[in-house]
Amino acid sequence: MSDYLPGLAGVPATKSNISDIDGEKGILSYRGYPIQELAKNSTFEETALLLLDGRLPTKSELAGFTQQLVADRRIKYYTRGMMKNLPPTGHPMEMLQTVVASLGMFYSASDCLNGSDACDDLDYIHNTSVKILARMGPIVAMWEHIRNGYDPVQPRADLNYAENFLYMLNGEEPDPLLARIMDVCLILHAEHTINASTFAVLVNASTLANPYSVIAAAIGALSGPLHGGANQKVLQMLEEIGTPDQAEEYVDRRLAEKKVIWGMGHREYKTKDPRAIILQELMNEFIEARGGDVNPLFEVAKAVEEVCEDRLAKKGVYANVDFYSGLLYSEMGIPADQFTTIFAIARTAGWLAHWREQLSDNRIFRPTQIYAGEPLRNYVPIEER
Amino acid sequence: MSDYLPGLAGVPATKSNISDIDGEKGILSYRGYPIQELAKNSTFEETALLLLDGRLPTKSELAGFTQQLVADRRIKYYTRGMMKNLPPTGHPMEMLQTVVASLGMFYSASDCLNGSDACDDLDYIHNTSVKILARMGPIVAMWEHIRNGYDPVQPRADLNYAENFLYMLNGEEPDPLLARIMDVCLILHAEHTINASTFAVLVNASTLANPYSVIAAAIGALSGPLHGGANQKVLQMLEEIGTPDQAEEYVDRRLAEKKVIWGMGHREYKTKDPRAIILQELMNEFIEARGGDVNPLFEVAKAVEEVCEDRLAKKGVYANVDFYSGLLYSEMGIPADQFTTIFAIARTAGWLAHWREQLSDNRIFRPTQIYAGEPLRNYVPIEER
Repeated sequence: MSDYLPGLAGVPATKSNISDIDGEKGILSYRGYPIQELAKNSTFEETALLLLDGRLPTKSELAGFTQQLVADRRIKYYTRGMMKNLPPTGHPMEMLQTVVASLGMFYSASDCLNGSDACDDLDYIHNTSVKILARMGPIVAMWEHIRNGYDPVQPRADLNYAENFLYMLNGEEPDPLLARIMDVCLILHAEHTINASTFAVLVNASTLANPYSVIAAAIGALSGPLHGGANQKVLQMLEEIGTPDQAEEYVDRRLAEKKVIWGMGHREYKTKDPRAIILQELMNEFIEARGGDVNPLFEVAKAVEEVCEDRLAKKGVYANVDFYSGLLYSEMGIPADQFTTIFAIARTAGWLAHWREQLSDNRIFRPTQIYAGEPLRNYVPIEER
Repeated sequence: MSDYLPGLAGVPATKSNISDIDGEKGILSYRGYPIQELAKNSTFEETALLLLDGRLPTKSELAGFTQQLVADRRIKYYTRGMMKNLPPTGHPMEMLQTVVASLGMFYSASDCLNGSDACDDLDYIHNTSVKILARMGPIVAMWEHIRNGYDPVQPRADLNYAENFLYMLNGEEPDPLLARIMDVCLILHAEHTINASTFAVLVNASTLANPYSVIAAAIGALSGPLHGGANQKVLQMLEEIGTPDQAEEYVDRRLAEKKVIWGMGHREYKTKDPRAIILQELMNEFIEARGGDVNPLFEVAKAVEEVCEDRLAKKGVYANVDFYSGLLYSEMGIPADQFTTIFAIARTAGWLAHWREQLSDNRIFRPTQIYAGEPLRNYVPIEER
């Protein structure tokens, strides 16, 4: 028997072809392509298909995939009726887990998910992946209206994934630069090797559960405060700091108290998170485009990062992807409790790629336990306890 | 780095005090108490509290717990409204995952699930465990009516868990012997160390996700054909065999084809599954009480087991708990596609115990991967692909 390592830290749980991190050099790659190149040249649609299929699509493959994604944007009125029965005070991640789980009830699973072997019904896998991915953005956007008592905005077929999401969310065509920033944010969050939510995908997929149920499980894992949700906390932190001149005092106080500076540091990277560098550039582009007329918290963020760089860079702690994404989402009119749902929309592409990979060479997860409880003992009648 | 073991087979993923299996001797124990003694002396309510708290309750503890379970049987009309928007053709396990995930939206989580340390808010953990466990049976029973287009039956406060479940399912007070058999079935399925669904609990709980979302993830894992669902297949097999005299031919043909005999064998036991022995006794008691006037499939089951014992016992393959449970559920008027939901109702007790144990000494699950994909490569413009 292997050693017991809490949290299975460092224990390989899968062989994967999907993404890789070089933490020393600060490289994240999807299917071999560095994230910088994808952020610069690709779209969320293309990146999602790259993650699923393992290679960059041809023009006609991408057109077909995009068309399918548009067609599957429509949400049934049953689902809308269901959502209207959910309490507006619930967390959007719980809503998303609920709705995604329910979608599986509308579609029958492939027969290949009934056998005990690997599933190789690639048409089913592809079409179901589209069905799920296409609906994630619309569901999140619909909830923003439904929880406020309004009818949702219908999707549009002439917009790309990111644009349609922002359109359904705000009811108006998005600013092109912000739409491109959302597109890049979706690319940046689409995949990140094996973390708790992706691991949840592997575990659930290995039972041959239907993919809606598998993605619902992953949404549950991502909803945990230790996993998703840091960008919401960055925004709260910046609001608490309030002005750039307060940044130094705040950071030094938190460090002295050995408390976390939200959005700083990532267990996988010894350098600055490559995704943070990309977002920072986009943020600067956005500030410039607006002639500096932006949320004053951007200046607070810059001041916090400057102080942190001075204090923490020598320890290999730099800003991570969450440090900027929340601020940018907030400029798009997105409330803070929806930040993690955007993470989930993006990561669904990676989760589905892992679902497919798991099915291609499946073995049910059944680790063991070290029993540390009571030895065998006899039942004691209630009168004698 | 550890070796890569597909499915983490044999890799310890937790230290646990909850249950233990001695596969050589055929002993399953909850908190040290052998399953035989619990099946004989305990109730599902008492066994659930034993699993949660780690010790047999006093009279007043059990009374308090039972009272709470009764009070939490009521289901909000929002939930009913949501269920009415789910398609009747969907699998009940998908319905159950959906509804349990939604319940978390109605209740706020403890602050202790926001920190990065272990959660020790035992009142919250206890009360939430009751909230979830109490509603599992009623939700499953409600679905049986809703999917058929009828209003659900309201719960009754004067019945125990098993009785109330059967009452809500069939709209009439259950036969006392069948109610006791259901009670024992719930005890027998309440816990079984670390399998895929319980492991899903650990993974999701480790992110500090809310417990409704954790149990929803586990329901998803249990819904997989490789995990739950074997008792449904046993019933189909017995129906296919049809008469006792066909048993020998069927078994020998399946064995010659190297195919599974459903309900036979269990990876954890080298002897007969102790739970199968208990169910077999109850089955015989039931047949006797009915003066033999029972479903003819009981005789088919006996014949199949006799042939299997002759052919397979020398290989350590015996009937498991699934071999008899489906037949008995069917006598209670439960359709085959609801068998796995009953498994989920029972196992919720164990899942909640594991949720609590994980929080008491938490570390987020983050195993690693072996990257076997493409090396770094440059993005290729779409025209050049």
